[in-house]
Amino acid sequence: MRVKIILGSKSDKKIGAKAANVLKDLKIDYHMTVSSAHRTPERTKGLCTGADVYIAVAGLSAALPGVIASHTTKPVIGVPVSGKLNMDSILSILQMPPGIPVATVGLDRGDNAALLAAEILAMQDEDLSQRLKEYRDNWEEKVRKDAAKIENEFGVER
Amino acid sequence: MRVKIILGSKSDKKIGAKAANVLKDLKIDYHMTVSSAHRTPERTKGLCTGADVYIAVAGLSAALPGVIASHTTKPVIGVPVSGKLNMDSILSILQMPPGIPVATVGLDRGDNAALLAAEILAMQDEDLSQRLKEYRDNWEEKVRKDAAKIENEFGVER
Amino acid sequence: MRVKIILGSKSDKKIGAKAANVLKDLKIDYHMTVSSAHRTPERTKGLCTGADVYIAVAGLSAALPGVIASHTTKPVIGVPVSGKLNMDSILSILQMPPGIPVATVGLDRGDNAALLAAEILAMQDEDLSQRLKEYRDNWEEKVRKDAAKIENEFGVER
Amino acid sequence: MRVKIILGSKSDKKIGAKAANVLKDLKIDYHMTVSSAHRTPERTKGLCTGADVYIAVAGLSAALPGVIASHTTKPVIGVPVSGKLNMDSILSILQMPPGIPVATVGLDRGDNAALLAAEILAMQDEDLSQRLKEYRDNWEEKVRKDAAKIENEFGVER
Amino acid sequence: MRVKIILGSKSDKKIGAKAANVLKDLKIDYHMTVSSAHRTPERTKGLCTGADVYIAVAGLSAALPGVIASHTTKPVIGVPVSGKLNMDSILSILQMPPGIPVATVGLDRGDNAALLAAEILAMQDEDLSQRLKEYRDNWEEKVRKDAAKIENEFGVER
Amino acid sequence: MRVKIILGSKSDKKIGAKAANVLKDLKIDYHMTVSSAHRTPERTKGLCTGADVYIAVAGLSAALPGVIASHTTKPVIGVPVSGKLNMDSILSILQMPPGIPVATVGLDRGDNAALLAAEILAMQDEDLSQRLKEYRDNWEEKVRKDAAKIENEFGVER
Amino acid sequence: MRVKIILGSKSDKKIGAKAANVLKDLKIDYHMTVSSAHRTPERTKGLCTGADVYIAVAGLSAALPGVIASHTTKPVIGVPVSGKLNMDSILSILQMPPGIPVATVGLDRGDNAALLAAEILAMQDEDLSQRLKEYRDNWEEKVRKDAAKIENEFGVER
Amino acid sequence: MRVKIILGSKSDKKIGAKAANVLKDLKIDYHMTVSSAHRTPERTKGLCTGADVYIAVAGLSAALPGVIASHTTKPVIGVPVSGKLNMDSILSILQMPPGIPVATVGLDRGDNAALLAAEILAMQDEDLSQRLKEYRDNWEEKVRKDAAKIENEFGVER
Repeated sequence: MRVKIILGSKSDKKIGAKAANVLKDLKIDYHMTVSSAHRTPERTKGLCTGADVYIAVAGLSAALPGVIASHTTKPVIGVPVSGKLNMDSILSILQMPPGIPVATVGLDRGDNAALLAAEILAMQDEDLSQRLKEYRDNWEEKVRKDAAKIENEFGVER
Repeated sequence: MRVKIILGSKSDKKIGAKAANVLKDLKIDYHMTVSSAHRTPERTKGLCTGADVYIAVAGLSAALPGVIASHTTKPVIGVPVSGKLNMDSILSILQMPPGIPVATVGLDRGDNAALLAAEILAMQDEDLSQRLKEYRDNWEEKVRKDAAKIENEFGVER
Repeated sequence: MRVKIILGSKSDKKIGAKAANVLKDLKIDYHMTVSSAHRTPERTKGLCTGADVYIAVAGLSAALPGVIASHTTKPVIGVPVSGKLNMDSILSILQMPPGIPVATVGLDRGDNAALLAAEILAMQDEDLSQRLKEYRDNWEEKVRKDAAKIENEFGVER
Repeated sequence: MRVKIILGSKSDKKIGAKAANVLKDLKIDYHMTVSSAHRTPERTKGLCTGADVYIAVAGLSAALPGVIASHTTKPVIGVPVSGKLNMDSILSILQMPPGIPVATVGLDRGDNAALLAAEILAMQDEDLSQRLKEYRDNWEEKVRKDAAKIENEFGVER
Repeated sequence: MRVKIILGSKSDKKIGAKAANVLKDLKIDYHMTVSSAHRTPERTKGLCTGADVYIAVAGLSAALPGVIASHTTKPVIGVPVSGKLNMDSILSILQMPPGIPVATVGLDRGDNAALLAAEILAMQDEDLSQRLKEYRDNWEEKVRKDAAKIENEFGVER
Repeated sequence: MRVKIILGSKSDKKIGAKAANVLKDLKIDYHMTVSSAHRTPERTKGLCTGADVYIAVAGLSAALPGVIASHTTKPVIGVPVSGKLNMDSILSILQMPPGIPVATVGLDRGDNAALLAAEILAMQDEDLSQRLKEYRDNWEEKVRKDAAKIENEFGVER
Repeated sequence: MRVKIILGSKSDKKIGAKAANVLKDLKIDYHMTVSSAHRTPERTKGLCTGADVYIAVAGLSAALPGVIASHTTKPVIGVPVSGKLNMDSILSILQMPPGIPVATVGLDRGDNAALLAAEILAMQDEDLSQRLKEYRDNWEEKVRKDAAKIENEFGVER
Repeated sequence: MRVKIILGSKSDKKIGAKAANVLKDLKIDYHMTVSSAHRTPERTKGLCTGADVYIAVAGLSAALPGVIASHTTKPVIGVPVSGKLNMDSILSILQMPPGIPVATVGLDRGDNAALLAAEILAMQDEDLSQRLKEYRDNWEEKVRKDAAKIENEFGVER
C-alpha cells in the first residue's frame, strides 16, 4: 500500500475523507483507519509499517503525527484539525524536536496532505506525475471560470 | 520510588532541577532521567512503571507527558518548558483528549510540579502532609518579610 | 467525601456534570456545589475542607482553582471553561505562582479532571485502580470499533 | 489613607514604585506593601480596608486585584506585570465576572494606575484636580520639546 | 449628570444597555449617546465635559475611550466590544501610553463598567455606597440559590 | 482603468463586492476579477498592469497582495479575509519585507480598501476629492442620527 | 510639502528615521515631528493639513494614525512599533472602522511606509516613478549578490 | 541535483546552514542560494526546476515556499524563520489554499527540513534509507548518554 491515513479519532473522519477522495482521484492505493496516540499506543505503533507515506490527522494536543514519526523513517504528513483553540493542534504537530520531522499542512487540509503524498510518490511514478499536473491544471481552469463569473457579475465599471 | 522525573531533553535540566530540589526538601524519594517521546519511544515506554507519580518536563511539541500518561494510570504531571513560542509546549501538554488526563502546571514551574506530587503523596503520609504545611507556612513568612522591606523602603507617604 | 466539585457559576454546570458522571461511573463519592471566588469569597473558603481532592471549574478570569489551592494543601484540579477568549480561563488557572500548584486539565475537560482525581485516589484503593484500568480498556475497545467502522466505510482503496 | 498599593510579590517592586512616585508627585497619601492572593490569603483579606482606592500589582495568574475587589466595594485598580507570556496577567486581571469590576490599566503601567487613582480622588478635592491638570500640561509641554528636537535633527527635507 | 455613556457605534447598543441598566438599578443619573472617535472627532470632543465619570464602549480599533481620556481628567472607563478578533478592542483600549489612563473592564462587560462608575461615585455618596453593598449581597444570595439547585440536582453521590 | 480588484478566490466575492460598491458610489472606474497567487501565478502576473491602484483580497496564507506588489510599483492595497484563524491572512499580508510595501486594511474591510484607493486617486482629481468629503460627511450625519435614536430610547436617566 | 511623518513619541524616532531616509533617497520633500494622539490632541489635529500623504508611527494602543485619518481625507499610512506585546500596535492601527481607512504596513516598517508614500506620489510624478523603479532594481541586484555569496560559501554539494 | 535550498534573504543563512549540514552528513547532493519571492519574482520562478525536493526558508510574510510550490509539483518543504512575531512566518507558510501544499516544519527547523527531504529521497535509495536509520539511532544513543549524565548528577534520591 502506498498511503496509510490514520485518524486520531472517529470525529476526524471528515478531514480524513478529504485526503481519501484526493488519493482516489489520483488513483493512489490507500488505507484509512483510526488509532489514538494516547488511548491505543500499541495499536498506533503496530500501524507504523507497510506504507510509503503516512498521513496522520489529529486535533487538540495532536500527538499522533509525531508518535508515528517516532516509529518510522518514512515521510509522515500531519493534518491539524480545527476545534475551540486551533493553535493547539497546529503547534502540537508543527513544533517537533530536531531529528523527527513531521510535514505539517494547513488546518483541516486533508486534501493538501494527499496532494503532498502524491508529489512524494510521483518521484518514482511518471504516470502519477502526469495526473498530478492535470489535477493542478484543473485548478487553474476552475480559477478562470470563477473569474469569468465574477467579471460577468461585477463587469467593468466606469 | 515515589516520583520519577523524566526530561524530554537534557536542555530541560534546569526546570527538572527545580522539581528535584523541592522533592529533596520535602524528603520524597525521586529519580530523574532523560527520555524523548519522539527519539526514544521504547525507552520512554519502559520508564512508565515503578513510580507512584510521574513528572514529565518538555518543550516545543511536548508529547512526553501525554505519551507517559498513555502507558500508565498513575498520575502524570506535565511541565511545559519556555522557548520561542511558549504556547506550543503549554497547549501540547494541556489539551489532552478525553480519557487520558495530564495534570499541567505553569510554564517552567518544575517547583509546582513537585509540590503537586507531594500533595498527592501526602494523602497516604501524615508526616509529609505536615512538612507540606510547614513549607507553605515558610512562603507565608517570606511574604511578610518582603512586605516589611517594601514598607520600610516606601513607607507611609503623606 | 472523596471529591468536591466546585463550580464558579451555575453556567459551568455542563462541564461539572462531565466530571460528576465519570466519578459516578467509577463509584467515587463526590459532592458538587457552586461558589464564586469573587462573589462569595467567604463561602469559597468555607468549602475548602473535608475532601481528599478538589475539582474547581471556572471561566473568564478563573480565580477559583487558585483560591481553593490557597486554602488547602490537598490536590486541586482546575478546569478552564471555554468562552469568547478561551485563553483567559486557561492562563488564569495554569500560571500559578511558585508554592501554590493547581493541576490544570484541558479546556472544558471535566471528564479528565475526574479521571485525574480517580488516579490520585487509586493510590490508596486497589479496587478503584482496577476500575480505572477497565475504564481505559473500554476506551481502547471503542477506538478499535471506530477503526472497524472507518475501514468498512473507506475500505482499502487501490 | 487615600491609596493602598499592594504588590503580589516583592519582584513587582519596580512597577509599584512607578505608582508610588506619581502619587508622591501629586501629594496623595499612600501606603505600599506586599501580599499574595495565593500564599497569604488571610493577610490579603485583612488589607482590604482603610483606603479609598486600591492599586493591586501582579503577574502570572494575577488573582490579587480580583481577590481584593471581592473584599471591598471601593474602586480597585489592577496592574498586570509583564513576564514570559504577558497575556496571562492581562487576562487574569481584566476578565472579571459580572458583579466584581477591576479597573485594569496597561501592562506594567503603575504610573497610569496612580493617575487613575488621582482622577478618582480628585472628584472630592479641587486642589488635586488642579495638580492633575498641571501634570497633564507638563506632558503636553514635554511632547512639544520632543517635537522641537526631532524637527531640529531631521528638519524639513526638500 | 453623573455618568455619560458614549457608544462608538449604534451596534454597541446592547453592551451600553448593560451599563445603563445597572446605573438605573443603582439610581445613578446617566446619559447615553453615540459618537465615533474616527467619524465624528469634533462631536466626541464636545461630549467630553459635564459628567463625573465617562464610560466609553467600542470595538475593533477602539480609540474612543483613549480619545475621551485625552480631553478630560475625569475617570474614563473603557469597555471593549467582542468581534471577529476580540484582542483588537481589548488591546486598543488597555495599552494606553503613560499619562493618559483608561480604566479597562472585561470584554463586553458594560455591567462592570457601571459598577466601577458606581464605586467611584460612592466615595461622595453614603446612600449609593449602601445600595452598592446591597447589590453585591444580592449576587452572594444568587450564588447560594444556584448552589442549592446544583446540589439538589447532583446531590451527594456515594 | 483606475482600480483593479483581484480576489484570491471566488469565495472572497462578498468582501470584494464591498470594495466595488464604494468605488461605484464614488464614480471610480474599476474592474473585478479572480486570480490565485498559488494556483494561477502566470495569470496573476499578467494582471499586474494597466491600473493606477490594485486591491487584492485574500484569506489563509494570503500571498496575493504581496505577489502583486512584487510585479508593480503602483500602490497595492491588501484586504485580509476572515476564516478559522484570522491572524493568518492579516499577518501574511501585513508583514512584507523591506522594499515591497502592501497597504493593509482591517479584516474583511473591502470598503476601506476602496476608500483608501479613492484617497490616493483624489490627489489628481479635485471632483473625486469633493465626493470623498461628502461621503465622510454622510458618515458623520449617520452618527448623529444614530445618537438621536439611542438618546431617545435610553433618554437622560435620573 | 509632500509627506508629513508624525511620531507618537520621541521613542519612535528610530522607526521614523527609516522612513525619513528612504524619502531622502527618493528626493521627496518631508517633514518629521512628534505629536501624541492622547497627550496633545489639539496639536495632532493642527498637524493634519498641508501634506499630500501622512505617515504616523506609533506603539502600544496606537491611536495616532486613526486620529490623523479622522481629520483628513488624504492617505494616512500607519506604522506599528514593536514593544512587549506587538499585537497591540498592529491591531490598534489596522482594525479601523468602515469609513476611515489607514494603510497599515508591517511592524517597525518605516521604510515600507515611505515607499508606499512614494508609490502614491509617483502617480503624478514620472521622475519619481523612475527613481522608484531604480530603487527596486537595486534590491534585485542586492539579492543576486547575496545569492552569489551564499553559493560561494555553501557551493554545490555532492 | 536532489535538493535545492532557497533562502528568502541572506539573513536566513543560519537556518539554511542547519539544513545544508544535515544533507551533507547524509551524503545528499544539494545547492543553496538566495531568492526573494517579493524582490526577485522572476529569479525565484527560474529556480523552480531541476531538483527533486525544494527547501524554502523564509521569515515575516513568508511567501517564498508557497510561490515555489505554485511553480512546481515537486515536494516543497517550508521552514518558518523566527522574528519579532513568529506566528507571521508560521502561518504564512502553513495555511496554503487547497491544491498547493507546502510541507511545513517547525520554527527555525532547517535540520528537520533536510531530514524530511532525506525521508522523501530514501524511497528510491536503499543506501540513504540505511544512513537515515543510523542517523536516528545516533539520536537515540545521544539520549541515553544524556540520561546517564543527568542520573549521575541528580542520582536516585531517598
